[in-house]
Amino acid sequence: MTTATAAARMSAIVGEQHVVVDAELRVAYDRDWTGRFGGPSCMVVRPGSVEEVSRVLATCCELDIAVVPQGGNTGLVGGGVPRGGELVLSLVRLDELEPIDGSSGQVTVGAGATLEQVQRHAAASGWAFNVDHGARSAATIGGMVATNAGGSQVLRHGTMRANVAGLEMVLADGRVLRRLGGMAKDATGFDLCGLACGSEGTIAVVTRARLHVMRSVPRGVSALFALHSVESAVALLQDLRERGPELVAAEFFLGDALQLVERHRQLASPFPDDAPAYLLVETTGNTDADIEQLAESAEAVPGVVDVAVAQDAATREALWAYRESINEAIAAEGIPHKLDVSLPIARLAEFLASVGTRVRALEPQARTILFGHLGDGNVHVNLLDLRGDPEPTERAVLELVAELGGSIGAEHGIGVAKAHFIGLSRSPEELDAMRAIKLALDPTGILNPGVLFVQG
Amino acid sequence: MTTATAAARMSAIVGEQHVVVDAELRVAYDRDWTGRFGGPSCMVVRPGSVEEVSRVLATCCELDIAVVPQGGNTGLVGGGVPRGGELVLSLVRLDELEPIDGSSGQVTVGAGATLEQVQRHAAASGWAFNVDHGARSAATIGGMVATNAGGSQVLRHGTMRANVAGLEMVLADGRVLRRLGGMAKDATGFDLCGLACGSEGTIAVVTRARLHVMRSVPRGVSALFALHSVESAVALLQDLRERGPELVAAEFFLGDALQLVERHRQLASPFPDDAPAYLLVETTGNTDADIEQLAESAEAVPGVVDVAVAQDAATREALWAYRESINEAIAAEGIPHKLDVSLPIARLAEFLASVGTRVRALEPQARTILFGHLGDGNVHVNLLDLRGDPEPTERAVLELVAELGGSIGAEHGIGVAKAHFIGLSRSPEELDAMRAIKLALDPTGILNPGVLFVQG
Repeated sequence: MTTATAAARMSAIVGEQHVVVDAELRVAYDRDWTGRFGGPSCMVVRPGSVEEVSRVLATCCELDIAVVPQGGNTGLVGGGVPRGGELVLSLVRLDELEPIDGSSGQVTVGAGATLEQVQRHAAASGWAFNVDHGARSAATIGGMVATNAGGSQVLRHGTMRANVAGLEMVLADGRVLRRLGGMAKDATGFDLCGLACGSEGTIAVVTRARLHVMRSVPRGVSALFALHSVESAVALLQDLRERGPELVAAEFFLGDALQLVERHRQLASPFPDDAPAYLLVETTGNTDADIEQLAESAEAVPGVVDVAVAQDAATREALWAYRESINEAIAAEGIPHKLDVSLPIARLAEFLASVGTRVRALEPQARTILFGHLGDGNVHVNLLDLRGDPEPTERAVLELVAELGGSIGAEHGIGVAKAHFIGLSRSPEELDAMRAIKLALDPTGILNPGVLFVQG
Repeated sequence: MTTATAAARMSAIVGEQHVVVDAELRVAYDRDWTGRFGGPSCMVVRPGSVEEVSRVLATCCELDIAVVPQGGNTGLVGGGVPRGGELVLSLVRLDELEPIDGSSGQVTVGAGATLEQVQRHAAASGWAFNVDHGARSAATIGGMVATNAGGSQVLRHGTMRANVAGLEMVLADGRVLRRLGGMAKDATGFDLCGLACGSEGTIAVVTRARLHVMRSVPRGVSALFALHSVESAVALLQDLRERGPELVAAEFFLGDALQLVERHRQLASPFPDDAPAYLLVETTGNTDADIEQLAESAEAVPGVVDVAVAQDAATREALWAYRESINEAIAAEGIPHKLDVSLPIARLAEFLASVGTRVRALEPQARTILFGHLGDGNVHVNLLDLRGDPEPTERAVLELVAELGGSIGAEHGIGVAKAHFIGLSRSPEELDAMRAIKLALDPTGILNPGVLFVQG
């Protein structure tokens, strides 16, 4: 079967204009935005309905063509781009937004809708979708389901899996599983939708999602604490969680991350003196009592150097700008090697104190910039100035994570980037069970080969 | 292989005193408490550790002995009792309670610990486990995981699946899957723990669970509303959810349920006049502002006849007694046929208005007592005075649920009771996918045969 013949079969399903064979036009699909992952696909197919997705997959199954499902192509672990020769199944045309169902607090959206489109759609009728992260303008709901995306509000609202009330998805052979009723209580057998969340396109292609939304509420109080140490930040978070008020977010960054932001974004430091660590929290409420409780915690926990509080939108935005500019500031220094991990909160300070040493033992010139979501134990390890093969350095960081009982993949997934490290976080028994499920649902292995599981 | 030989093999693993072969001693394990489900097991085996569970299962696999995992035997759908000839694997000895991990807000407990033991254990150090239901003194955590149990606080805290941070479980062949790290963000492949929640013992035996706990907070305001109709109750709940305050629970019952409670519990009605429908809510906070908001909703929504409000423990208990005495009051009238279903909130009133008519068309003398968790669309249909084969009446009720887009199993599971009805709630494609997963993880089919899937 030549590519031309296969492309003709696909054109008959989705229309010729939605089958991209030309190499130049494929560039945006064949490589990820970091430039680190990708390869030449055989073609890109852009179906416009679940029926077309079903027919495309059935045809791929028949012709034994490997398929890479792709959303907004914002992934960081190479899970949504081809390795070489696969068909890219782009879901971006499935971007319909159904009206909010106010009686259930749910909304059904297409897998190709971006996070921002969903957020705006909900906001337009007074609702909020409560998963949020920096790639909101391009990341699609389907990709976020596939990676079980997290972000900055997981502390209060959970990851994608907790915000999905149902899915429509297509199995490798084209069979459609549709579960969009969104019952809060539905004990009728296996939770196939939950299984799809985080499966990274290896067992089904998500075409539609039913999402939980909540009534919009005004933003709360934001407070940025400067601290003597990471230990103080952990202790402060602990005190805040016990004393109240309820927190939506608890983000941290170390001193050098703030310095990069000051340098590249020309932002003045919020405090007269530099500190080793910073904790940025946001509360659900916005009252004087919330501010008093924050002040009480700052008083009670040793190691709090300073605090800046924001109750209004402009001041809040100014505080959050420090946190939200870190990725951009790091990118201005060079292409970082990003490792997304999570640690038990009790081991977090130990990890942050040791990781730089482990990296420098292998690459003495390397810089390790650390920030993330403290409330979830989620650290984004950014390695700059790596010179040699990054594999040993990656392994050293991920082995440290495993030693401390953490997870080598927090919210970005495993993709191809960490597939050969997955044994650090999952036991042989777990991996066998995963492989058995993969084989049961995709017996010919056409869905995203090389992702999660190293190819034999 | 005789039973005696198999029992000797089991005795060598768990000790002779934990293998029950004698029919009289097996009675408590072989039949459920309603007397509706059960059959003679070949023996009861009570392992004392995960290692023993593993060896028992490996032996059952080798000898091809079917296994029924059992917890507190409080199930209502026959999923935890033998049908005939199986080995009952009682997990009640696995009742250890580890200390609360305050840094993560989690606790690891044995599958055999009862809900009440876990609640008390958490409360003793100022924490709360937020899944709650009436069978708390006997229902075990393992059984609650297996059925994805719900209860009265799902509106705020979700079902069991949302409250499980990790599991230890044993596959049919004895392999142990242990995932007790409890990372909030852990995107490292398939969510096997979530898959086990609600799988009713058909793919693995749960031996330990890591549960989310929250800092204990004082109870909120309870309010019992008397209403002109179910439609008014639904509208009131909608108004409360939009206006605030945040609700922990929203329970409903119809007028005849309250009359039964008044009769059998000798409780005086809280209101001077009977009403067709009642809504009992509890808020998370306990302030005058909460009470004002409740009063505003009562004012704004047509059809609210009366309201009783409780801020203190004694009054709150008195209000909740009406709701919590319904099961007992029904049982005093006869053995009810219980069907646990959920409906889209928008179709709930339609269901409640029609279900009695459907039942009486087949059994004119039957009484249909309705109550449940309005916030989750979860209705407990209690049929009294059925005379003939209950199957046609059950089918009529469940078909009505399916017509209205609901789920035939809300929080009790499918078990054997509804296995032949599961096609009303799950499509052939979903059932095929479920069967494929079952076969992948339990290829010889020894785990709970007949539950979820009708035996061929």
